[in-house]
Amino acid sequence: METNRHNFSSGPSILPDEVLQKAAQAVLNFNDSGLSLIEISHRDPAFVDIINSARSQALELLNLQDKGYSALFLQGGASLEFVRVAYNLLSKNGTAGYINTGSWSNNALNEASYFGKIVEVASSKDKKYNYIPKNIEIPSNLDYLHITSNNTIYGTQFKEFPQTDIPLVCDMSSDIFSRVLDFTKFDLIYACAQKNAGTSGVNLVVVKNELLERIKKPIPNIMNYRKHIERESMYNTPSVFSVYVSYLTLNWLKDSGGVEAMERKNRAKAHLMYSEIDRNNLFFGNASVEDRSVMNATFFLKDEKLATQFNTLCLKEGIYGINGHRTAGGYRASIYNAMPITSVQLLVQVMQYFEAHFG
Amino acid sequence: METNRHNFSSGPSILPDEVLQKAAQAVLNFNDSGLSLIEISHRDPAFVDIINSARSQALELLNLQDKGYSALFLQGGASLEFVRVAYNLLSKNGTAGYINTGSWSNNALNEASYFGKIVEVASSKDKKYNYIPKNIEIPSNLDYLHITSNNTIYGTQFKEFPQTDIPLVCDMSSDIFSRVLDFTKFDLIYACAQKNAGTSGVNLVVVKNELLERIKKPIPNIMNYRKHIERESMYNTPSVFSVYVSYLTLNWLKDSGGVEAMERKNRAKAHLMYSEIDRNNLFFGNASVEDRSVMNATFFLKDEKLATQFNTLCLKEGIYGINGHRTAGGYRASIYNAMPITSVQLLVQVMQYFEAHFG
Repeated sequence: METNRHNFSSGPSILPDEVLQKAAQAVLNFNDSGLSLIEISHRDPAFVDIINSARSQALELLNLQDKGYSALFLQGGASLEFVRVAYNLLSKNGTAGYINTGSWSNNALNEASYFGKIVEVASSKDKKYNYIPKNIEIPSNLDYLHITSNNTIYGTQFKEFPQTDIPLVCDMSSDIFSRVLDFTKFDLIYACAQKNAGTSGVNLVVVKNELLERIKKPIPNIMNYRKHIERESMYNTPSVFSVYVSYLTLNWLKDSGGVEAMERKNRAKAHLMYSEIDRNNLFFGNASVEDRSVMNATFFLKDEKLATQFNTLCLKEGIYGINGHRTAGGYRASIYNAMPITSVQLLVQVMQYFEAHFG
Repeated sequence: METNRHNFSSGPSILPDEVLQKAAQAVLNFNDSGLSLIEISHRDPAFVDIINSARSQALELLNLQDKGYSALFLQGGASLEFVRVAYNLLSKNGTAGYINTGSWSNNALNEASYFGKIVEVASSKDKKYNYIPKNIEIPSNLDYLHITSNNTIYGTQFKEFPQTDIPLVCDMSSDIFSRVLDFTKFDLIYACAQKNAGTSGVNLVVVKNELLERIKKPIPNIMNYRKHIERESMYNTPSVFSVYVSYLTLNWLKDSGGVEAMERKNRAKAHLMYSEIDRNNLFFGNASVEDRSVMNATFFLKDEKLATQFNTLCLKEGIYGINGHRTAGGYRASIYNAMPITSVQLLVQVMQYFEAHFG
């Protein structure tokens, strides 16, 4: 499919063209079976291979294969993991720590509070979440510390992670597979798929098996990570199509050079984007410069009255999904792995043209 | 797509050809937008229309529009609704009643037991779930009574539902939209989509608003039906593709004459299937005749040694998904709404040929 659309949507978001082609083909006729992917049994060996291959691929891309981690593709979105994490890891009379760096951290914290005591270890709410707290003091009595690595709405991102012996749980929904990290520092990583790992309807959970061994409390099966691991991510019927799209996306990622190659391209795109935001007289960025997200560049018009003109120009050029989150306003260019630099170049040109004509 | 495959899978299961065609097209280019359905924002007006239209259509097909019910498309499968139902409806110190008619009822009961007191009001476990309990005495102190209307694994189905003033909760995963019922008798209906309402990754919940008004206990947002209704089924990012497949499937259903037309066709298919099971000397059915499911016909070889021959014959004729559930053995012909009678006729012919050659 050739289009002149440039998809800056924050999620669900841009997918590689070959992923879309293969996914559409599988809906019509899966593996030349004469049946659609979405009408075969999830226990069909062909689908069991797909989900297991996607689970292995996820671990491999994070360099966590053979390191005592399990990968799961579950349903419910990151929002369900907010609950599942606390259900599993917050012990009776225990306390969990949350670093509050935006709406999603805040939601994670609120949902966890139904399961026990929560402390907000640090917060950037005082400045409308436009920075990442530094030099955080972490209480030593926590069951776990929860972090949101990238804040999609406010455009900030952790560059360094707190050093701690406490189990580290990270919501990487919007920057997983986008940069090389030592992922062994994390005890549990979760991410909705619809940014860098596929489309909506499935969430990836990567968990250190050891972390789950200590759990004593009773947990319903569907909420229980151990049960999902035991059943190889097939405790109940998975979201078959979404798992397949993740499988295709992770394969594309691998074939495109893996996380290292993605990081290089993402840095180049972000550099281009932020250079223009800083240079252009009509716009400004408000995220703290050292904390700027490589995935979501947020920016604002200095003069809000020019919004209609800029929006019209974007629309005309096929730029989609550039509006900021409804709670933050302004603009947001989400430049995930699958976003080609040519689309960022176009957006930059549009911003330059806009400045030349309306500045 | 023309195939000579006959898909008797119990779920995910057969979908109408036009649904597959439209779903595949939307993955390539949604509504001629130049973007894929699976990479646009779920808050794009085009998708908001889809989910709202699917919600209205579901209520209309059940004849529940304007009767104080809400329809939601949530994630997690029926297995998550096992938990959500109890989380919402089982009050502190309250008791819920479950009728145990198979593995899924049993799972629903077990998952609910984490949230309070459960009584098993009736069970057919004594005869390996091959019948539906009758003349059930229902305690008057229950917060709700839970029923599984159709038992996919054992091939039984409620024909009459208990008369009670207690809120009736029904898992209709495998027979929703397959027969006309007075759906106002139910206070909460839920169903995974992958049998009669689409593909996996989404579950339909239809709930009487009044039922939720009495709830006092604190419930995390993602588990809270009221929150999902308040946010019009968009509390968190929905499973976009699966919702779209449900939308297409419900439209197909409506255009095909609605639930009444489905019931007529389903009865004809089931009659054909069970007549052959009863007539054929090599097979027998073990579900109690008056409780036989119109959706899933289970049957067994009298002589298990002939299994390889029958399986080979089925494979040769393009018959897919005919094996019984791994816990039940034997065979199971799932003949959901989208299954054409011609596929059932073929299966019957294969059974007759098999009898003629191996009897």
